[in-house]
Amino acid sequence: MNLEGVLPPITTPFDGDELDLRGLGRNVQRWMTTGLRGLVVLGSNGEAPFLDDVEADRAIGTVREHVPGDRIVIAGTARESTLGTIAATRRAASLGVDAVLVRTPSYFKSQMTMDVLVDHFRAVADASPAPVLLYNFTAVTGINLLPTAVERLAEHPNIAGIKESGPDLAQVGALVNQTPGTFRILVGSAPTFYPSLCLGVTGGILALACVVPELCVDLYDLATAGRHAEALALQRRLVPLARDVTSSYGVGGLKAAMEAAGYVGGRPRAPLRPAPPEGSEQIRQHLHALVAVAS
Amino acid sequence: MNLEGVLPPITTPFDGDELDLRGLGRNVQRWMTTGLRGLVVLGSNGEAPFLDDVEADRAIGTVREHVPGDRIVIAGTARESTLGTIAATRRAASLGVDAVLVRTPSYFKSQMTMDVLVDHFRAVADASPAPVLLYNFTAVTGINLLPTAVERLAEHPNIAGIKESGPDLAQVGALVNQTPGTFRILVGSAPTFYPSLCLGVTGGILALACVVPELCVDLYDLATAGRHAEALALQRRLVPLARDVTSSYGVGGLKAAMEAAGYVGGRPRAPLRPAPPEGSEQIRQHLHALVAVAS
Amino acid sequence: MNLEGVLPPITTPFDGDELDLRGLGRNVQRWMTTGLRGLVVLGSNGEAPFLDDVEADRAIGTVREHVPGDRIVIAGTARESTLGTIAATRRAASLGVDAVLVRTPSYFKSQMTMDVLVDHFRAVADASPAPVLLYNFTAVTGINLLPTAVERLAEHPNIAGIKESGPDLAQVGALVNQTPGTFRILVGSAPTFYPSLCLGVTGGILALACVVPELCVDLYDLATAGRHAEALALQRRLVPLARDVTSSYGVGGLKAAMEAAGYVGGRPRAPLRPAPPEGSEQIRQHLHALVAVAS
Amino acid sequence: MNLEGVLPPITTPFDGDELDLRGLGRNVQRWMTTGLRGLVVLGSNGEAPFLDDVEADRAIGTVREHVPGDRIVIAGTARESTLGTIAATRRAASLGVDAVLVRTPSYFKSQMTMDVLVDHFRAVADASPAPVLLYNFTAVTGINLLPTAVERLAEHPNIAGIKESGPDLAQVGALVNQTPGTFRILVGSAPTFYPSLCLGVTGGILALACVVPELCVDLYDLATAGRHAEALALQRRLVPLARDVTSSYGVGGLKAAMEAAGYVGGRPRAPLRPAPPEGSEQIRQHLHALVAVAS
Repeated sequence: MNLEGVLPPITTPFDGDELDLRGLGRNVQRWMTTGLRGLVVLGSNGEAPFLDDVEADRAIGTVREHVPGDRIVIAGTARESTLGTIAATRRAASLGVDAVLVRTPSYFKSQMTMDVLVDHFRAVADASPAPVLLYNFTAVTGINLLPTAVERLAEHPNIAGIKESGPDLAQVGALVNQTPGTFRILVGSAPTFYPSLCLGVTGGILALACVVPELCVDLYDLATAGRHAEALALQRRLVPLARDVTSSYGVGGLKAAMEAAGYVGGRPRAPLRPAPPEGSEQIRQHLHALVAVAS
Repeated sequence: MNLEGVLPPITTPFDGDELDLRGLGRNVQRWMTTGLRGLVVLGSNGEAPFLDDVEADRAIGTVREHVPGDRIVIAGTARESTLGTIAATRRAASLGVDAVLVRTPSYFKSQMTMDVLVDHFRAVADASPAPVLLYNFTAVTGINLLPTAVERLAEHPNIAGIKESGPDLAQVGALVNQTPGTFRILVGSAPTFYPSLCLGVTGGILALACVVPELCVDLYDLATAGRHAEALALQRRLVPLARDVTSSYGVGGLKAAMEAAGYVGGRPRAPLRPAPPEGSEQIRQHLHALVAVAS
Repeated sequence: MNLEGVLPPITTPFDGDELDLRGLGRNVQRWMTTGLRGLVVLGSNGEAPFLDDVEADRAIGTVREHVPGDRIVIAGTARESTLGTIAATRRAASLGVDAVLVRTPSYFKSQMTMDVLVDHFRAVADASPAPVLLYNFTAVTGINLLPTAVERLAEHPNIAGIKESGPDLAQVGALVNQTPGTFRILVGSAPTFYPSLCLGVTGGILALACVVPELCVDLYDLATAGRHAEALALQRRLVPLARDVTSSYGVGGLKAAMEAAGYVGGRPRAPLRPAPPEGSEQIRQHLHALVAVAS
Repeated sequence: MNLEGVLPPITTPFDGDELDLRGLGRNVQRWMTTGLRGLVVLGSNGEAPFLDDVEADRAIGTVREHVPGDRIVIAGTARESTLGTIAATRRAASLGVDAVLVRTPSYFKSQMTMDVLVDHFRAVADASPAPVLLYNFTAVTGINLLPTAVERLAEHPNIAGIKESGPDLAQVGALVNQTPGTFRILVGSAPTFYPSLCLGVTGGILALACVVPELCVDLYDLATAGRHAEALALQRRLVPLARDVTSSYGVGGLKAAMEAAGYVGGRPRAPLRPAPPEGSEQIRQHLHALVAVAS
């Protein structure tokens, strides 16, 4: 499985309280016209913690249907229990995903030692029909899966890589240094994508790639081709919109940006809120500034 | 609904990968022979994040069946989405619980402002057939529902009180000061139970009460009767075991302590682990020291 | 040395860039007409980190001069290095203080293990001519001197007690439980003073006692006399002003409150700021409400 | 003032309780035979919080004496008060330093808003005869001087740049994006030095450069010459030793590494400890592995 390049952690559109599977399908079809390596369904930006199991299966099925065989579908299948994670992982695999993305459990924080996490991921990887990607998102979970633990897990034949979402590039560098070259390291933060590529990571799972996939792919291509000055210039231009759709307005901001770019966006589920009017306006301005320069 | 006194946040016993509903029923029957005011099913110590909806319903049903009408059954029904929380709340109410306990959503931390949380709880309370108790457990969620937000929520006719699990007694005092006397404040930390009662809280939802319910009820009775010297002495004696079953060994420690006290304990679900042998031994010693003095 | 009761961590008045030693002396004389057990000079509220060594010595000398022999003068003498702390401690002792208060060093956080802190305090206590009080103020230092470390330090013959400034009453209870009865435990947070007394602490070093010393002493007297209902009522009334002079407006708020109560207040040194006009107004209202009821 | 390149934050050697100014001078002379742009005296690694004012002046004086006029001497002059910082800054300037490095005050954390910090730095810059560099070291201070505040301060004619010590490259990128090209951004973390250079920072103030100055200068030269593959390879090789002398063993580790490299090292002041024997052994191995490959 070639995991190099850019993948968007796609949003889940809703129609009232229901999934909007048609909208989801349209988005996927459009993304597949670009240079994206594939996509991630049911990540954090897919509002995975808000979907029940039936909804999760339907979202995965719809995505798989619209993604050609030469692109990759990764599904988020984390649950708090090992048992629940394995069950969700098996269902996703039976729906044809190429890999699963498994976030660290985090509810019982004080008990989540590195040994406990290593055991959890090994049990999931042993039981999973599809390759497993670890998922470390400390800002959300309060848990930091340390490079020393990842180093141990990288030895498992069914653990293919990691999505590291934090902006600490000392940690990203440690992951690169302490794992074999076949272990895939994908970062989850657009504002640090270019310097992460400089450090040797494999690619990115970037919210921003839901909105401007081509520009994110361009950044990847420039950096991997050694065209550093151009890569840095593009990285700097991407930052304002990247922030809008993550730290500033979260999923609501990402959906607003997608609408501004012609994708199906819509509202997130409560308690999340849509971007406020001034946020949507700023997002539109940042998007237009970006696209204007690009074209 | 009289919510004064002590309630245990009961554990969920398992038989392999399945619920052990018989064991659960036996535990409940025994607890109901004591002075406990009622109990909480599907709290954190009930491993609620590890149960699916079908299991949750069966656990609630079993508990309700064994609790007489003059005692109180509270069920944890939090989900990350408002929609999911309302659905779980309605199912629990239809199973006959007296109240629901709703933890703050926490996955999308950076978006969980006090306004967002207030809206979430109001929507749940509007839709809930049963009274709602707020649940603030910052050590686990990374979210602190501030007294100013609780003050606003206390005005809602269907929000009956709060379980505050933190050890910060300035915050507990602020809850008492800033809410009406009819608003029930229950603390969730045995090591601070007595001083919390001094500050005027209504009662406690204490893991320790799964193991030594009578002693927890005694502490409540002594403090509310103004027998402060005896209350303090008892508080001090309870601390070592209280720590074993929470901060030191978590749910695994609580289940080991329950077994040592003759209840059905068993193993927690992975990734949680049973208490290690030296932990179980320490727990037995602390329990015996406590019971020996008490009798 | 009898360390039971209430002591204010007194402020340092300035006249422009200079110390206002006359104002300091006047304040001390007035405090000494009340039931305060003594006072603490050069604590956090004394802006100790802003004073040079010469200023520190002059402040201590002025205070000692105005405090009668049957009251206690405690001086803050912490520096980051062991060497510097010992030097400051010896100078304070030579100026006649009854005890020194030594905060945990905290600059090199990652190196400050409990073993390192224990060694530091032992070295200071070995060298100090006066009894040493430990000082744990985690909100400021980012370091938590754990009860297990205090337990070890309590065995030192020249370590007389601790000022614990945090609101975590589980930790306060652990200090009481794990140290001998001769070890003095003073809390530093007015909003948790009464419940701390319920747990058996010796007294309080309370910013609020700079402003309304008699009411703080009343609270101590009521609680230690077992008049719990009156103590709780007074505790609740003290909270609004207690917050103004600590978490809300800091030293600037404390100095504003002192002025409103007829003491010499003035401005703190920059970068600290005086309380803003609306803060000063609120402080005056809280003070008047408190005094009106009291008289 | 040309601030591009690498500067070591030099250690302060001691002889018993006294400064070892001869050792200091010898170290400086040797550093000045390399491609280092200059050096920083009295930074964190110089144990500045452990030195009194007289010692600080003597250390600065000694360093200035041994640094030729075409290299840069920067002195750390932060104190908690604005007044004290200005006094220390003026003394350093009178001793001939080229710039001063001023860390954020941090003791009164809850009061240190961005506005307060901006006022503090402006007052220092107004009064300083020498250009001011801001110093943000969140891991130590608990304070994060945000890029929005730096953006405002960069407009001051006497504020020349910033040392940012954190590993968050989103924040480093924001500093580059939000300040003019004349504003100097120096990072303080060797494990993120190369990717920071990719993002356009000006240079580094690196503990590692006390030990292997040439290799750090090589890394800077390779990255700025666009020789990225070689830069990355060197970055990766530097990490193990970089960690030894910072996160693992702190100043004690740095001094042990300097001794292994033939510099005057010695013990840090208590409460800091020398590196333990196994740490010193590891440091020697990492150093030899590094130098063996380099030569």
